[in-house]
Amino acid sequence: MKAFAALTLAAAALTLSAPASAQFAKAEDAIKYRQSALFVMGQHFGRLGAMANGRAPFDAKVAQENADIVAQMAKLPWAGFGAGTDKGAPTKALPEIWTEQAKFKEHSEKLEAETVKLAAAAKTGNLDNLKTAFGATAGTCKACHDSFRAK
Amino acid sequence: MKAFAALTLAAAALTLSAPASAQFAKAEDAIKYRQSALFVMGQHFGRLGAMANGRAPFDAKVAQENADIVAQMAKLPWAGFGAGTDKGAPTKALPEIWTEQAKFKEHSEKLEAETVKLAAAAKTGNLDNLKTAFGATAGTCKACHDSFRAK
Repeated sequence: MKAFAALTLAAAALTLSAPASAQFAKAEDAIKYRQSALFVMGQHFGRLGAMANGRAPFDAKVAQENADIVAQMAKLPWAGFGAGTDKGAPTKALPEIWTEQAKFKEHSEKLEAETVKLAAAAKTGNLDNLKTAFGATAGTCKACHDSFRAK
Repeated sequence: MKAFAALTLAAAALTLSAPASAQFAKAEDAIKYRQSALFVMGQHFGRLGAMANGRAPFDAKVAQENADIVAQMAKLPWAGFGAGTDKGAPTKALPEIWTEQAKFKEHSEKLEAETVKLAAAAKTGNLDNLKTAFGATAGTCKACHDSFRAK
């Protein structure tokens, strides 16, 4: 029974750290990796926000470029949250990421889905579409941060 | 004449920091952005290296996934080397990046081109092709680091 539980946990950890290519030499690298991917994504997402919120002029081409990068980057960070990466470098990641893996995975998948919609919205060249998709995506960032990131 | 020189410099800076979407709130963000993009790229590139050098078993699918990410990431860092980002956060970037912009740009374009070939090589599913393309890409990393990154 104990062995089965361990196996289940191991399987869950593998699922969380998919794709299988996602292997890090040490926890510190995984932490730096996920923070790096999220930072790059955040920079591009911020540029969309500036347009969505009228702080920057709307440029359809620039919006599309940034949204495409956001959608690409949104796939990456999760591989850096594998088992044993709760410490090893300064991190705001809360323990709940590893104790509530199913919920965390749901959040990450929601972000990926919303960023795909965001890229599609940007492709329409319509600012209102961008605003709507930006708001929905920002909502998924916040929901996940509220539950899984230290203040 | 002075105005023309200033204009030329400004144009060069714009070219270096293209695409136009690449705007950062402060130099610190640009530095963190380029370092983040390079770190993410390096992690995926390292996995290809492990396969190319026999330290990890060759898995064509995993190789392709990683090479695709490397090619995507290779486009990003350069926007973070805009004018005024030589300081503002700890950085190994040498002043030559800004005093020899044409040469630096040549290196960055070479990397982008080699990573496109790397992704194509990975797609063939042939380890020898991957090895060749990995070596060529690693060579462009080294050449640029030798000239533009502090030891």
